[in-house]
Amino acid sequence: MRELGEFALIDRINAGREQAAHVLLGPGDDAALVAAPDGRFVVSTDMLVEGRHFRLDWSSPRDIGRKAIAQNAADIVAMGARPTAFVVALGCPGETEVAVVEGIADGMWAEAGRAGGSIAGGDLVHSAQLVISVTAFGDLGGQAAITRSGATVGDIVAVAGELGWSGAGLAVLSSSADSSDPAFAHALAAHRVPQPPYAAVVDVFGAEGPSALTDISDGLLADLGHLATASGVAIEVHSAALADAELAALAQRLDVDAGQWILAGGEEHAFVGTWPASTSLPPGWRPIGVVRAGSGVTVDGAAPTGGTGWESFRGADAPSTGDRR
Amino acid sequence: MRELGEFALIDRINAGREQAAHVLLGPGDDAALVAAPDGRFVVSTDMLVEGRHFRLDWSSPRDIGRKAIAQNAADIVAMGARPTAFVVALGCPGETEVAVVEGIADGMWAEAGRAGGSIAGGDLVHSAQLVISVTAFGDLGGQAAITRSGATVGDIVAVAGELGWSGAGLAVLSSSADSSDPAFAHALAAHRVPQPPYAAVVDVFGAEGPSALTDISDGLLADLGHLATASGVAIEVHSAALADAELAALAQRLDVDAGQWILAGGEEHAFVGTWPASTSLPPGWRPIGVVRAGSGVTVDGAAPTGGTGWESFRGADAPSTGDRR
Repeated sequence: MRELGEFALIDRINAGREQAAHVLLGPGDDAALVAAPDGRFVVSTDMLVEGRHFRLDWSSPRDIGRKAIAQNAADIVAMGARPTAFVVALGCPGETEVAVVEGIADGMWAEAGRAGGSIAGGDLVHSAQLVISVTAFGDLGGQAAITRSGATVGDIVAVAGELGWSGAGLAVLSSSADSSDPAFAHALAAHRVPQPPYAAVVDVFGAEGPSALTDISDGLLADLGHLATASGVAIEVHSAALADAELAALAQRLDVDAGQWILAGGEEHAFVGTWPASTSLPPGWRPIGVVRAGSGVTVDGAAPTGGTGWESFRGADAPSTGDRR
Repeated sequence: MRELGEFALIDRINAGREQAAHVLLGPGDDAALVAAPDGRFVVSTDMLVEGRHFRLDWSSPRDIGRKAIAQNAADIVAMGARPTAFVVALGCPGETEVAVVEGIADGMWAEAGRAGGSIAGGDLVHSAQLVISVTAFGDLGGQAAITRSGATVGDIVAVAGELGWSGAGLAVLSSSADSSDPAFAHALAAHRVPQPPYAAVVDVFGAEGPSALTDISDGLLADLGHLATASGVAIEVHSAALADAELAALAQRLDVDAGQWILAGGEEHAFVGTWPASTSLPPGWRPIGVVRAGSGVTVDGAAPTGGTGWESFRGADAPSTGDRR
């Protein structure tokens, strides 16, 4: 990379890209210009650090690029917005292979397209460690933002997307298990590239939406805790609704408890929301609990035991991943 | 910082902040919501890396925070837009003093206010090296964006803001000179906290604006080179118009050439633009050259010698600074 130089590499990774309709002016000037059809835009930013949020020996550059975009797009969708565009700042050591940067860029473009946007601009700098900073934008289409604070007593708590499989993949990579065993393939894929179910949210636009919504990045219990606090309610989770026989079988092979993956694993970027009890849940959503008066989160009526989610700086320095805005 | 934890620190640096009018929903949910009055927004992102773009032994945390916002706000203003909001991702080692993060945040809020916006959201993660990623937003107020590509033959080239003083400050810090000498105070301040002359651009809104505009982040000649290429023209700079007796005296003390600071020093985030020859330059702008047919940049009719600006990865690994989107 040191040989090619910043400007030539920027030209190379931008070559042949087609901007989404919302990007009115892409890379190449002092700033980009993005459409905000409803006169507002939703924005979220996340930083991913090598060794902390991803590892080049565990994930391909393309997977890392996809994950970086997916976790930011999930934050946009979790407000009830449609992703429109992304900007990216990348810091890398001078000895980074050009192919690594190209792979990350390719993955970013692929996931941005899946989410409905494109990469409108970026920055490329020299750093000691590979660092990826993504800022994502979305449009609410004239609707109100769906925050974490709208849950009311009696609401159903429902989830869209898989739970626990990313945690399972991380457990496989962290263990001495043979990661080429086909039995681990789905878990590894879930860990390497989260697949937030964007459509389960953006396709219910204009229909009866959730009263509160968030994406699961710190872990189900941790994120429900944030939602319960913001809404001033208690949340009761029913573990039977979270059971996953296939995941349990995998956990047994690794001699661990699948419950921790489901309750405390972050990074899957599934969505959890609350809906008035009278609502028929839209396609892709399954009930997992109920909103009660009070505070905090319980599982089957008891306070959860064990780790409940991810927080930077506190606790383990393990090469785990997961981030929060 | 490891002791306090991510969530507590985020709460602490957000406490008591007052959001600008454009920020409809600030930190605390999955994403922020920002007004885009004219149905579009201008966006720019830059990453600053410790040891590369700033040094904690050369600048206070507050200065670093101000600089990070200023260089992004300058990119927004260089499109002819008014800054509205910023989001920030910060990566820091676990042993970072809480006061360092608070100082950076304070500086960011101060400069965001000076530029006309506020910090709408962010992310805080663990990294080996202090890394600051800022994304800035602006509103064009219904006007067309002022790009680098609008210069036409015969236009006047004009500058708003100081040139060379940031480079002089860097030279002082890199030398064995006594940096507490009052003679160096202005240069050091210019290096530590660039003061882009936002008003010289945003206050000419609606009046006769420049045909092309950019901020000087890579160095005057490098950025004029980008503008000349984008516009398909040549630019002729008159060195007499750039002379600065005070800066020349300082250069003499350090036994170097002030010309290099003026022509190749980046990071000052002055603005350079081109204006139809018939225009009376607005307040704060001074002519430094003219647009000609052809390509490239000349100084007094000759190709410039010496370094012409900053590029990441290429060349020196010196603790220099300066960045580009």
